[in-house]
Amino acid sequence: MAARDPYLLTPGPATTAAETKAAMLRDWGSWDGDFKAITARVRARLLEVAEAGDAYTCVPIQGSGTFAVEATLGTLVPREGKALVLANGAYGKRAAETLARIGRDFEVYATTEDTPPDPAELDRILAADPAIGHVLLVHCETTSGILNPLEPVARVVEARGRSLILDAMSTFGALPIATSTLGLAAVIASANKCLEGVPGMGFVIARKADLQAATGNAHSLSLDLADQWTYMEKSGQWRFTPPTHVVAALGVALDLHAAEGGTPARGGRYAANHRAVVDGLRGLGIEPLIPDVLQSPIIVTFRCPDDPAFAFQPFYDRLKAEGFIIYPGKMTAAETFRIGCIGTLTPEIMGEVVAAVGRALDALGVARRNAA
Amino acid sequence: MAARDPYLLTPGPATTAAETKAAMLRDWGSWDGDFKAITARVRARLLEVAEAGDAYTCVPIQGSGTFAVEATLGTLVPREGKALVLANGAYGKRAAETLARIGRDFEVYATTEDTPPDPAELDRILAADPAIGHVLLVHCETTSGILNPLEPVARVVEARGRSLILDAMSTFGALPIATSTLGLAAVIASANKCLEGVPGMGFVIARKADLQAATGNAHSLSLDLADQWTYMEKSGQWRFTPPTHVVAALGVALDLHAAEGGTPARGGRYAANHRAVVDGLRGLGIEPLIPDVLQSPIIVTFRCPDDPAFAFQPFYDRLKAEGFIIYPGKMTAAETFRIGCIGTLTPEIMGEVVAAVGRALDALGVARRNAA
Repeated sequence: MAARDPYLLTPGPATTAAETKAAMLRDWGSWDGDFKAITARVRARLLEVAEAGDAYTCVPIQGSGTFAVEATLGTLVPREGKALVLANGAYGKRAAETLARIGRDFEVYATTEDTPPDPAELDRILAADPAIGHVLLVHCETTSGILNPLEPVARVVEARGRSLILDAMSTFGALPIATSTLGLAAVIASANKCLEGVPGMGFVIARKADLQAATGNAHSLSLDLADQWTYMEKSGQWRFTPPTHVVAALGVALDLHAAEGGTPARGGRYAANHRAVVDGLRGLGIEPLIPDVLQSPIIVTFRCPDDPAFAFQPFYDRLKAEGFIIYPGKMTAAETFRIGCIGTLTPEIMGEVVAAVGRALDALGVARRNAA
Repeated sequence: MAARDPYLLTPGPATTAAETKAAMLRDWGSWDGDFKAITARVRARLLEVAEAGDAYTCVPIQGSGTFAVEATLGTLVPREGKALVLANGAYGKRAAETLARIGRDFEVYATTEDTPPDPAELDRILAADPAIGHVLLVHCETTSGILNPLEPVARVVEARGRSLILDAMSTFGALPIATSTLGLAAVIASANKCLEGVPGMGFVIARKADLQAATGNAHSLSLDLADQWTYMEKSGQWRFTPPTHVVAALGVALDLHAAEGGTPARGGRYAANHRAVVDGLRGLGIEPLIPDVLQSPIIVTFRCPDDPAFAFQPFYDRLKAEGFIIYPGKMTAAETFRIGCIGTLTPEIMGEVVAAVGRALDALGVARRNAA
């Protein structure tokens, strides 16, 4: 085992800073003014990162990112409403599954895992079906690492007078999201990805007017965003017990995000991480699944070497023994593994990852082949 | 301000041990074997604490305790089923509100905040309404601190062939719960009360057969206990991103629970805390709201001094300045405040609390009166 704690090369939970974790060394009274102040500051900072003006609010919610997505869909899509999901990976599929479960009508515009949705086709779908009130787009599908075309999609949805809900789980804080300018209805993310907080809470940037109009709409008490918002505005507290340590850690993580230079600097570092690992693995003959032009700097899916000597588990174990925890593939179309570029990683660390991958391939007896 | 971090004299989040918080100083890959091992160990230990045999499993769930209650009701109460809620405080009311929101038929057997449900009356209600399949009892209502009669209620529910769901949020780990012996259908609790973990997850001890039968029943994807269980059994992982640091902290907190001597020792310490604060405040002329015989050792509701010089906020602020965070009352029937006895507190610390209360009353100019 490596002497240090392992680096997480995953789509999150990601490696966090020591200061962020140290924020969890204190217990907070959830009702107390000091904790309310942390909550208020976190909410205000998240609105800034989202480039969201006065028409918006930030509603944090307990649980994982999926809980926040379900809360958003259940609260904002009316019981008799209809949603369109743009799906090219596991998270789009999960949003559709959520709508089915909570009893909201929906349609899926599916493309393959390496194909972004076509804005012209989206326009045709919306024109043909005026019942569709909300569209859900997954900004970056960590299934493959594909970055979906936010601005063209937002323009079509706005021109057709519908509401766009953006699942920005794995991009928030690293890629700019101009919430107000794009007229987004809601942006959903979680603490533990590009913001480099720890897992245990998500949050939603939503239009106040939409939340107000959605009172009583949610299918769930715990996942009622409108209720959570109303209570928080009134009391400064979370409706139900908050994950106090997780919230405090996010407060520090947001300070570090600002100190690094905000979203442009964070995204710049991840892009450098991404280049380092893609270039490095290409040098070992390992190619990304999707074309560079569609690729986000968040996570990269690589094709496994086409060599019978390669097997994922021993490859994983060897990298772990050197202190690097990588991520399995999630798709059926090709044998893949994934390497995340987020968290407190740097291009230097990614260089170490590449060297470790080289040693692991050698140890497994996988033949090196040069990239095309 | 006190030099140390404040003690939380609340019904949770409670003060946790330094070792428990220190467990959060490492990032875990949620997919990795090391984290799966933590999850497996936590689940096994919770089953032991619940005195639950092989017919039961432990399903952890992200979010607060309320999320776990909603997940249990939504999963176990069939869509066409009916539940009876025994309510004498805020948490019973919230369970009823949850049932209303998720569209399950229910009835409430309400008693006042200082009155436990009457088993004979419960028996009459169950006899009169065969549609009631599930009964929900809140073990300790932290609203008042009342301890409800688990064993007599369980006997009636079992004799009538119905299922008892126990909200043991604020007793689990401090008061014995003989899950198998009492034939409970489910026991719900969270990490951050008597187990002295940090907030961010709940868990449910449930009969495997009931979960199996409930597949597809839940109103929510995120809060589907049957799905969470099936996925966890198959993969060893949580279905959606777990609060890794919170889970690791609970692992350490459970070790400390065992090292202290398990539930009897933990409950014994809380009982000593309880005696120290009740006796101490009685000496200052401040009386508990409910009779000692109905009182749990978890939290005590005290009547505010009947003196115009007393006001809660300055009282709270003075205690906080001495490093003690108390809790406001939650009821309308009487002016009250609450003092929790859980967390890493000791009778010695409770003695310091009593002394600080005395100083705060003096500073506010509240006249001392001797107890009856």
